[in-house]
Amino acid sequence: MYLALAGGVGGAKLALGLSKVLSPDDLTVIVNTGDDFDHLGLRICPDLDTVMYTLAGIANSETGWGLAGETWNFIDSLKRLGGETWFRLGDRDMATHIERTYRLAAGETLSAVTSDFAARLGIRHKILPMTDEPVRTIVNTPDGALSFQEYFVKRQCEPVVTGFEFSGAANALPAPEISALLESGDVEGLFVCPSNPYVSIAPIIAIPAIRNFIAASNIPIVAVSPIVGGHAVKGPAAKMMQELGKPPSARSIADHYRGFVTAMVIDTLDGADADHIRSLGIEVAVTDTVMKTDSDKTALAREVIALAAAMPHPA
Amino acid sequence: MYLALAGGVGGAKLALGLSKVLSPDDLTVIVNTGDDFDHLGLRICPDLDTVMYTLAGIANSETGWGLAGETWNFIDSLKRLGGETWFRLGDRDMATHIERTYRLAAGETLSAVTSDFAARLGIRHKILPMTDEPVRTIVNTPDGALSFQEYFVKRQCEPVVTGFEFSGAANALPAPEISALLESGDVEGLFVCPSNPYVSIAPIIAIPAIRNFIAASNIPIVAVSPIVGGHAVKGPAAKMMQELGKPPSARSIADHYRGFVTAMVIDTLDGADADHIRSLGIEVAVTDTVMKTDSDKTALAREVIALAAAMPHPA
Repeated sequence: MYLALAGGVGGAKLALGLSKVLSPDDLTVIVNTGDDFDHLGLRICPDLDTVMYTLAGIANSETGWGLAGETWNFIDSLKRLGGETWFRLGDRDMATHIERTYRLAAGETLSAVTSDFAARLGIRHKILPMTDEPVRTIVNTPDGALSFQEYFVKRQCEPVVTGFEFSGAANALPAPEISALLESGDVEGLFVCPSNPYVSIAPIIAIPAIRNFIAASNIPIVAVSPIVGGHAVKGPAAKMMQELGKPPSARSIADHYRGFVTAMVIDTLDGADADHIRSLGIEVAVTDTVMKTDSDKTALAREVIALAAAMPHPA
Repeated sequence: MYLALAGGVGGAKLALGLSKVLSPDDLTVIVNTGDDFDHLGLRICPDLDTVMYTLAGIANSETGWGLAGETWNFIDSLKRLGGETWFRLGDRDMATHIERTYRLAAGETLSAVTSDFAARLGIRHKILPMTDEPVRTIVNTPDGALSFQEYFVKRQCEPVVTGFEFSGAANALPAPEISALLESGDVEGLFVCPSNPYVSIAPIIAIPAIRNFIAASNIPIVAVSPIVGGHAVKGPAAKMMQELGKPPSARSIADHYRGFVTAMVIDTLDGADADHIRSLGIEVAVTDTVMKTDSDKTALAREVIALAAAMPHPA
């Protein structure tokens, strides 16, 4: 049984590849909820929905987020009524937010709602929010502390980042099914998807029980670099690295993940970083990591699985 | 200054006609909120929205409720997630429910939200919910007490009605702007739109301050019969009358409104009822009351205004 840690678009792509290679019994995807927020009275879980829509085969492949064939009549009408329209909510997507908010208010947990939605969408693999409790990513900037969506959508990642906080993480428990897996002794390896290390992966490992599991276990932990040729495939990772004084490179990702991951998959464009990364005690595989087609996704999934399988395993 | 009491479709039609004849200073529409309910965590106000959309010229003229050019991608997606779909919520209409629910939760009153929505939709006349407080129509049936929408939409008006209750009405205050109007001494007449007397008009006059205003004033009160030729133009009024042991007729409407209204407009088809109605001390005008076109609506509006103007007014 493998666990995959995922944020939004890049994470969802590798999770889809993994789900095509590993059986539902052999893969559970743990998704960042630090980006979740309440908007217009609705609970929005962007990464969870991106992973769910992607594994269900109903994601919008052009934007990477939201649903295929989406329409925008809700948001157009909201504008007419003077409502807040900076966060674009599609008509079909709205069903997810409304039904989730309704069930959460009735006392269901986020992991229970997510499992039910995933099953109804025909997803056979387990997708779990990292926690059922509120953990919120805060982006520190010279303009002050911003909520993640305020930084990411409203401010379009324009403010310089000086650091991050994961409000609530220190006291959060993993979702119960994650706790059960971590305690089962069945987890053979962990995949860190090519998601933003600061705002997609860091919130997940900020949860003490998850961090402690990683520290105490000696399973293979394979990360895919989200930086390719000095650029983030999607999102603000490279911009954040620059602002934090780290050149955006696979090598910098390795420095960041040092002591956490045991192996990394980096892109062919970044092959020159391999020796440095190995010098950190991190195994390296060099391959094409940009996932455009479904076969790109399964090929990369096979690569990370092979790398984990080749690593020394716990006795 | 005239007040019009309105429920949904029929009420909205006459309200539109009145708004084309009377200036915004001379007409305020008071709308039933007894049908309001909470569904999927959203506050739904069917009559208020029907009146608002009709006066804004954006109503769906075929259904009589909802918005023109509506799409249904939300509800289709909700079905896929296993949500409740018996109450059809359109994608555009959803903006009204979400923004209203959000503002109510933030502490705004229903009348304030409604006034703002109406202004943004370009409506110059005042539309007010009868009260900002929760008043809920309960339909008593042999199957037990049903909430109005459960009776009306979910059960499609199939259960036999044995009576009605307006939960919360006895302690409800009118919306503040209604109270101000009632106390101003400026109200010259009241129009009772051709809405269901039991579930659209009765909840409004169940509010003590509105009922007491009517009882204490001697202004003309002109009702338009919602029954034409023994049938309700729309909705369950005729079925309810039969179940309550009253033949569905303009005459029965007059018997029901006796002591409340001072004049009635009945349809040409019901001219034979005029003498009976006059014998109750109710003035009568006989005309075509079925409003298909906008000119039907303004013609009927002129008729009710003329009837009110011809009645003895308070000194």
